[in-house]
Amino acid sequence: MTPDALNRLVAQLAKLPGIGEKTAQRLAFHVLRSPPDFAKGLAAALTEVVDKVRLCPRCFSLHDGPADTRCGFCTDARRDDKVLCVVENISDQLALERTKEFKGRYHVLHGVLSPLEGVGPDQLRIRELLLRLEDSPIEELIVATNPDVEGEATALYLTKLLKPLGLRVTRLAQGIPMGGDLEYADQATLARALSARREL
Amino acid sequence: MTPDALNRLVAQLAKLPGIGEKTAQRLAFHVLRSPPDFAKGLAAALTEVVDKVRLCPRCFSLHDGPADTRCGFCTDARRDDKVLCVVENISDQLALERTKEFKGRYHVLHGVLSPLEGVGPDQLRIRELLLRLEDSPIEELIVATNPDVEGEATALYLTKLLKPLGLRVTRLAQGIPMGGDLEYADQATLARALSARREL
Repeated sequence: MTPDALNRLVAQLAKLPGIGEKTAQRLAFHVLRSPPDFAKGLAAALTEVVDKVRLCPRCFSLHDGPADTRCGFCTDARRDDKVLCVVENISDQLALERTKEFKGRYHVLHGVLSPLEGVGPDQLRIRELLLRLEDSPIEELIVATNPDVEGEATALYLTKLLKPLGLRVTRLAQGIPMGGDLEYADQATLARALSARREL
Repeated sequence: MTPDALNRLVAQLAKLPGIGEKTAQRLAFHVLRSPPDFAKGLAAALTEVVDKVRLCPRCFSLHDGPADTRCGFCTDARRDDKVLCVVENISDQLALERTKEFKGRYHVLHGVLSPLEGVGPDQLRIRELLLRLEDSPIEELIVATNPDVEGEATALYLTKLLKPLGLRVTRLAQGIPMGGDLEYADQATLARALSARREL
C-alpha cells in the first residue's frame, strides 16, 4: 500500500522509545513533506553521534574529543577534585549540572543495582570507581542515585563499600519539593521530611 | 555541557512535530545507548526515503518506482476506473484503503483550501485533477475531504467546478460514528445524522 522505503522508515522510527506505529507514520510523513535537507541533516546527526560520541575513560560521562582523552568535566581545572558525585546516568548528571550548584567531579554508573533485571555491581562502573578512588584527593562522595528502591539499594551498597576507605559518603536530601504542598505530599516523603527536619 | 554532536542530534530531533527539547534529549540518549547499527539503520532509512519516494505524476500518491512511472494505485488493473476518490492527504488515503471497501482510483490534493493560510486552488492538485478528468472514463467523484470548515469549503468548491462536467459528485456520509453514543455526540453531528436519516 505504501512504498517500501517509507515502511522501512516507519519501522525504524517506531523502535524509538515512546513512539508507536501511528506516531512513526506521522513523523515519516513530516519528513517526506519537509525539504530533503531536513532528512539528510537528521541522518547526518545520527551518524555523527554514534561515530563521535564516546564515554570518558575516567568518569564515563559523554565526550566527543579524541579517544583516550578525558572529558570536560574531568579536565576542567576550576572544578573541585575533593568532591565526587556518583549518578545513575547522563540525564541525572545534566540535571545536577543545570543547578550550577555543584562544582566537583562526576562518576556515572550507567545503571543501578537491580537483581530482578540481572544488574549486579559488575554491570555498573563500580570497579572503575574504586580504581579511581585509589591515590585520589577525593574526600567526599555524594551518592546521587534516585530515591527509589533500586537507587536506595545502590546507595546502601556503595556506602558499605566506600565508608571503610575513610571517605565522607553523603546522599542528596529527601523531603518536600520546593513549591510543594504538604496536603498532597505522599506519606513516605512527608515522613522522611519530618525525620530529617533541620534546626533553623 | 554535552558534546556538540549530541546537541546537534537533539536539535534535529526537536524539529520533528510533537517532539520537544526534553523528548528529543531522551531519544538521543536512547540512540547513544543502542548498538551503533540502530542509528545507522535509521539514518539510512531517512536518506532512502527522500532519495526514493516521490509523488505519482497522475494521482500524487506516494510512489518509489522509477521517475515518470505511475504508482500502484494508478496501474492496478483490478481497480475501477469509473470512480475517483479525492482526498486531502496521503494519511487520509491510507485510512480509506485500510477499510478495504474502496476499489476505485485516488487523487491526492495535498492540502485543503484555506484562505487564512494562503492556500488557494493553485496550491492544491486541482489543475491536475481537471486535466485528468478530460477524456477519462470517470463517472463518479467521491470528495473525501474532512468534514471540517476547510474540508467542507474545498468540497463545495470542487462540486461547483465538477458538476457542470456531467460527473456524479458525492461526499462521505456524516453522522454518528459506529459504536458512538447519542448522549455524547455533539449537536452538529447529531443534527446532521437526523437530517440525513435513511429509510430502513
